[in-house]
Amino acid sequence: MTQIAEARCLAPGSTIGILGGGQLGRMIALAAADFGLRTIVYEPEISGPAAQVTNQHMAGAYGDERHLAAFAERVDVVTYEFENVPAEAVAFLSRLKPVRPGGGLLAVSQDRFLEKSFLAERGIATAPFARIDGPGDLEGAARAVGPHCVLKTRRFGYDGKGQARFDVGDDASGAWRVVGGAPSILEGFVRFAREVSVVAARGADGGFAAFDLCENEHRRHILARTIVPASVRPRTAGAAIDIARRIAEALDVIGVFAVELFVCEAHGRERLLVNEIAPRVHNTGHWTIEGAQTSQFHQHVRAICGWPLGPTSRLARRIEMENLIGREVERWESILCEPGAHLHLYGKDLAAEGRKMGHVTRLFAK
Amino acid sequence: MTQIAEARCLAPGSTIGILGGGQLGRMIALAAADFGLRTIVYEPEISGPAAQVTNQHMAGAYGDERHLAAFAERVDVVTYEFENVPAEAVAFLSRLKPVRPGGGLLAVSQDRFLEKSFLAERGIATAPFARIDGPGDLEGAARAVGPHCVLKTRRFGYDGKGQARFDVGDDASGAWRVVGGAPSILEGFVRFAREVSVVAARGADGGFAAFDLCENEHRRHILARTIVPASVRPRTAGAAIDIARRIAEALDVIGVFAVELFVCEAHGRERLLVNEIAPRVHNTGHWTIEGAQTSQFHQHVRAICGWPLGPTSRLARRIEMENLIGREVERWESILCEPGAHLHLYGKDLAAEGRKMGHVTRLFAK
Repeated sequence: MTQIAEARCLAPGSTIGILGGGQLGRMIALAAADFGLRTIVYEPEISGPAAQVTNQHMAGAYGDERHLAAFAERVDVVTYEFENVPAEAVAFLSRLKPVRPGGGLLAVSQDRFLEKSFLAERGIATAPFARIDGPGDLEGAARAVGPHCVLKTRRFGYDGKGQARFDVGDDASGAWRVVGGAPSILEGFVRFAREVSVVAARGADGGFAAFDLCENEHRRHILARTIVPASVRPRTAGAAIDIARRIAEALDVIGVFAVELFVCEAHGRERLLVNEIAPRVHNTGHWTIEGAQTSQFHQHVRAICGWPLGPTSRLARRIEMENLIGREVERWESILCEPGAHLHLYGKDLAAEGRKMGHVTRLFAK
Repeated sequence: MTQIAEARCLAPGSTIGILGGGQLGRMIALAAADFGLRTIVYEPEISGPAAQVTNQHMAGAYGDERHLAAFAERVDVVTYEFENVPAEAVAFLSRLKPVRPGGGLLAVSQDRFLEKSFLAERGIATAPFARIDGPGDLEGAARAVGPHCVLKTRRFGYDGKGQARFDVGDDASGAWRVVGGAPSILEGFVRFAREVSVVAARGADGGFAAFDLCENEHRRHILARTIVPASVRPRTAGAAIDIARRIAEALDVIGVFAVELFVCEAHGRERLLVNEIAPRVHNTGHWTIEGAQTSQFHQHVRAICGWPLGPTSRLARRIEMENLIGREVERWESILCEPGAHLHLYGKDLAAEGRKMGHVTRLFAK
C-alpha cells in the first residue's frame, strides 16, 4: 500500500529508467517518446533493440550497485522489461527511486512455487503442483499431482528451458539433473482446450483496466500467434479479468502485467487455471499497438508515471498478432505488401532459431 | 526519372539519414524504428527532439562537406524534415546516396517564384503573383496582382516571417526593407472560404497514395488545428488530390509531401488555388498516426526505402488534430484524462511562444 501513498505524477520531460534492452524495452521507450518522456536503458552490454531508440543508455551489471546508483540518479522512475531482473537490483533501486510494477509482483512471478502458493491461498485455481527440494521428493509428488507431470525449476524459467517430463516410476535422478539440481516444482499436466491471457494495468490511483481476453498459440514453447477476442464465453472472459484484478490488488501492482491461463472444458463448462503471471508488458499484448485505443506500452508508461490509465477498447472485430521467429522475418517484404498488416521489427541483426525478430498485427474490420 | 531507375529496396536494419532534428525528424525516426530500421540524425547542434529517440546522431554544419560525407557513408538513404535544408548540401549528398523525396521538389518548394511558375506552367491555379527583384518592381506588380498584396521573400519563408503587406501607393522602400532586400514575389490577396491540404506519397515504383483531404485552421500564421475530412464537395477533394498527383509525377517525388490549397467559393462553385508545396511530412498529416491505416511517417519510410506504399483509409468518421503551441502544452494532464484523445509531446524543454510543443489527436467514431 505504501506505493500508492508515494505515487507522484511525473511531468513530460521526466526520465524512465528501463532495466533490460530487448524488444519490450524498445517498445516501452517508443511509447514513452510519444509522450515527450526520456528513457535510459540499463543492461549489461549495450547492443540490444532498446538502445537503438534512445540516446541514453548505460552498460552495467545488474549486481553493480555503483552503476545502479548512477542510473537511479538519472531517472525518475524505474521499470523492467523482463521478469528475471535480479531481486537484489530491484531492492537496491527501490530505496532510491520508485520501481514499478513493484517488488511483490516481481517476487511472486520469479518463483513458480511462490506464485502458485500465492494463487492457491486466494482460491485461484492452478495446475496441481508440489514443491521439490531434492530427487527424493519426486516420486511421492508425482503420485499426488500426476499421473503425468513436468518438473520445472522454481526460478528463471523462460520459454520452456530447463524442464523435464516426469511420471510415476521414472528416473528421479535423471530428471533432477535436467533442472540442474535447483529448487523446483512438479506440476501435473493439464488437459486444456485453449490458452488465453489477460493483459491489464493498474494505475497509481488503484484504477484497473484490462484489454480484451486474447487466445494464444505456442509452437515449441514460444508464442506463435495471439487472436483477439478469445473464443470463450463472456462469463469466462469476465472471470479471467477478475482474476487479474485480484492479483493486481493483492500485490499492489502499478503498471502493465499479464496473466496466462488455461481454459479447460468439461461437462459443457469452461474452467480457468492460472498458468503464469508476467510482471511486465507482454508479447500477447502486442496487438494493442494498433488494435486497442491505448497500446499496452502507452498504458504501462501512463501507469508508472502516475498518470490516468487510457481506455482499452478493441478497435476491430478480430485481431491477430503473429510473432516473426527466426527466419520467419524474411517474409517482411510480402507482409509490407499486405493491406491492413502492421509490421514491427525489433532491430536485431541475427535471425537465430527461436529468436523473436518482430511481429505482425492484422485487423479484421468490425 | 533517374531516381526510379536507381530505386533499390532497402532491407530492415538499413539506416536512414535524417537532415534536421525537430519533431518531424523525431516522428520519422519513431516510425522507422517500428520497421526495425536505424536512423542517424544530422543537425548543426545535437539538442533537438529527434536525437532523443535515436542513439546515432552527428553534429555538423549543413555546409560542412567533410561531415556530410561521413554522414552519407553511414546511411543507406537520406531524407530531410524541413524544406530549408541548403540545396548545396542535398546536391552534395545526392552524389553519394539517394536523397528523397528528391531535389526537384525541394528546389521548387524552396523558392516561391519557382514554385508558382512551375504550377502556372502546368495550368494549376495559384494566387496571382509577380516576381520582385527590387523596390522599383513593386508598384507595377501591385497594379497587376492587387489591389491587396503581400510581399514575400522567394526563399526561406516559414510560418509568416519576413512578409510585408503592400498595396498600390504604399512605401516601396519600406516594404523592401522588411524583406531584407532579398529576391521576392508579390502575391495578390485571395479571399478564401477555407484552407485545406493534401498529404500524399509517391513510391519508388511510381505508385501514388493520398490521405483524405484535411481542413486547416491557422492562428498567427501557425497551424492550430486540422480537421478531417475537409468540408468540401467530393469533386473538390478529388481535384485537390489530383493536383498533388500531378505535382508528384512532374517532380518525380519519392516520399511524403504536402500541398496546401485555398478553397474559394463563388457563384455556388468551389475553386482551388495552391498556396504552398511542402517537400516533407507535414504538420497537417499528424492525424494519420492514429487516424489512418498507415501513418504519414510510416508511409514516408516505406516510400524512401523503396517499399510498397501502405493503405491510407481514414479510421474514424471525423478526426481532429490540435497543435499544442507554447504554453498550451501545460494542458497535458487534462488531455491524458480525456478518453479517445491521443497526446504526443516532442521532448522540448522550453515552451517558448509560438513553439510547437506537441499535438493531440481526437477520433470521433464512425
